[in-house]
Amino acid sequence: MTGPATDPWSATQRTIRTSMREHVDAAADAAVATVVHVEGSGYRRPGARMVVDPDGDSHGAVTAGCLEDSVVDAARRTIDDGRSRLHTYDLRDDDADIWGLGLGCNGVVDVLVEPLDTSFTPVLDALDANRPVTVFTVVASSDPALAVGDRHIVGHDTVSTARDPLPDTVVEPVASRLDDATEDVAVTTDVETAAGTARVFANRLLPAPELLVFGGQPDVNPVTSLAARTGFRVRVATARGAWADADRFPSADDVVSTRPADLDAVVDVPEHTYAVLMSHNALDDRLALDALLDTDVPYVGVLGPRSRFRELREAMDRSLTAADEARIAAPCGLDLGGDEPTAIGFSIVSELLAVHNDRSGGRLVERPGPIHERPEIT
Amino acid sequence: MTGPATDPWSATQRTIRTSMREHVDAAADAAVATVVHVEGSGYRRPGARMVVDPDGDSHGAVTAGCLEDSVVDAARRTIDDGRSRLHTYDLRDDDADIWGLGLGCNGVVDVLVEPLDTSFTPVLDALDANRPVTVFTVVASSDPALAVGDRHIVGHDTVSTARDPLPDTVVEPVASRLDDATEDVAVTTDVETAAGTARVFANRLLPAPELLVFGGQPDVNPVTSLAARTGFRVRVATARGAWADADRFPSADDVVSTRPADLDAVVDVPEHTYAVLMSHNALDDRLALDALLDTDVPYVGVLGPRSRFRELREAMDRSLTAADEARIAAPCGLDLGGDEPTAIGFSIVSELLAVHNDRSGGRLVERPGPIHERPEIT
Repeated sequence: MTGPATDPWSATQRTIRTSMREHVDAAADAAVATVVHVEGSGYRRPGARMVVDPDGDSHGAVTAGCLEDSVVDAARRTIDDGRSRLHTYDLRDDDADIWGLGLGCNGVVDVLVEPLDTSFTPVLDALDANRPVTVFTVVASSDPALAVGDRHIVGHDTVSTARDPLPDTVVEPVASRLDDATEDVAVTTDVETAAGTARVFANRLLPAPELLVFGGQPDVNPVTSLAARTGFRVRVATARGAWADADRFPSADDVVSTRPADLDAVVDVPEHTYAVLMSHNALDDRLALDALLDTDVPYVGVLGPRSRFRELREAMDRSLTAADEARIAAPCGLDLGGDEPTAIGFSIVSELLAVHNDRSGGRLVERPGPIHERPEIT
Repeated sequence: MTGPATDPWSATQRTIRTSMREHVDAAADAAVATVVHVEGSGYRRPGARMVVDPDGDSHGAVTAGCLEDSVVDAARRTIDDGRSRLHTYDLRDDDADIWGLGLGCNGVVDVLVEPLDTSFTPVLDALDANRPVTVFTVVASSDPALAVGDRHIVGHDTVSTARDPLPDTVVEPVASRLDDATEDVAVTTDVETAAGTARVFANRLLPAPELLVFGGQPDVNPVTSLAARTGFRVRVATARGAWADADRFPSADDVVSTRPADLDAVVDVPEHTYAVLMSHNALDDRLALDALLDTDVPYVGVLGPRSRFRELREAMDRSLTAADEARIAAPCGLDLGGDEPTAIGFSIVSELLAVHNDRSGGRLVERPGPIHERPEIT
């Protein structure tokens, strides 16, 4: 069974955060490179991160590969002298062949390279506690009182003294505009200060989304392994105790046995939990659905044909509200065709990604407008 | 890097064919279980296969797991006595709890269990030669002259004597209706014979689709590994010889170096080849696109924003026909959101599956009609 990608370059935010935690806990020298701004087009968007070891091994990606070597060099310099620096790579230049890429990304990419110090601990603590957290970092400043790397964190309990803090007068103007962000936000904003201008990178981070699969058959595995690969935390809940064997679901972070009617009790953070009902038992699926509708989970996928869901729905004691119907996907999955277990897993996990990112799942070639909306606050 | 699924249950048709080839070449005892008919709803459709070893190890899936044990028992019996048998599993029965599943699939599934003998050799030969092939097999008969397992193969050079052949009078009525099938077809049809009725399973098989990736950066790997996992044969063509190192693309079956303008020369079987241009070099992508449009490849995906493709298109010497535009996906991929390398790989490979299966992408919950159309000829 294939779990998360073993290719470190293709690491997800979730595995990168794990790598950051391991380095911080071990007090191991390392640097973090973060895309803080992109002008024109780039492969990665602001917020993309790469962790770099002193030996140059990296985890994550900040470009399609064209800048990785240069960023690794910059990271090793930061590991040596402990200083945070902003590096700007202009790929619009036809001489960009120095990046071995030619007319590649056609954009200007700003990358903040900083030491992986304990200033990240409160960030990782908050995310591990399933709480959103926002990190404000100075990436450029004409004010002698503010230096690149100065940091303020909103949404944590612990305090770090690893970096100089930011005055409220710098944080407030940016923070007030991020509060109701529903997805990760990563933007740079210029703020006038007492003695100049500071460019602040504001990065709102959300906990990794969780996939809760209700089922116990072998067809669970293609779903869990593909979802784990895309960065979901994965739990499997089975109604049959004999099936609640972690060895049967090697990609799951957690395998539990539950009564279908008690499935809601398994949900830790409803707003970040996506559920898929695939027990192949209509009665169990019905009881599980009924239980989940009492939670705030944004998505409940039900495997199987429409006719089965119709019967299941008619047998329910409750009548579904419009809000219920909006979060139930029955049949679940994107319309990809194919009936092989892996194809079905692809169909379901692709829908999880689309719903999580508030997209339609249709073809991009038929979608009006840019692939990535720019955050309004930029 | 994760390549094809290592979970044998989630095997694709491609890896199952490889397993069949290995058994036949080694003259190793084994049986093949094939879903030949489904009444009502089932997890797998007709044509789904499972290879079973004498020790009970299996490769592939014929159900969501509920019947696997019973099918393995039936397969071991066939391995012992060499006889082909049709097994019918009725899951509509509430007593279906004997399958440990309760009100599960709610359908009747007919599974043909036959010896994995050299009658499959011409089939595998044809597919390995990238030629479609159709297999006709008797699954039931009231005619004493025809037995379950009797076989006729259309679309091969070699001949096998492992099975009794079918008379043309039995094959012709079914064969004539399959000729223009564009996808795998698997249907059972009753044919009147001289002395009764024969139920014939007709299975048209197509070669595995091929993904041709033009590019050489690390972002190629999430695309190739996910595509390989879904059953695509994967080739990587890079314009830079230094990048044409198979170790850099562990999921690719084949890595070649080519001039962008010669990319068409790399295409073996155009009608089964899906191409993705992701060199991150606008000039190289343009030359590669121009070359591919002279072939019959059904899909050319171009990575990157619309604006980049617009410039690329304006710089081309040719003006695109409606047919060209219909097979160019720029930007390529389904609208899943997310910018992580794995998410981009998911977006692209999901579109490959949708196009290959003639589907739209988009959510099944918004698609009218059944998830799987029944072949018209049933």
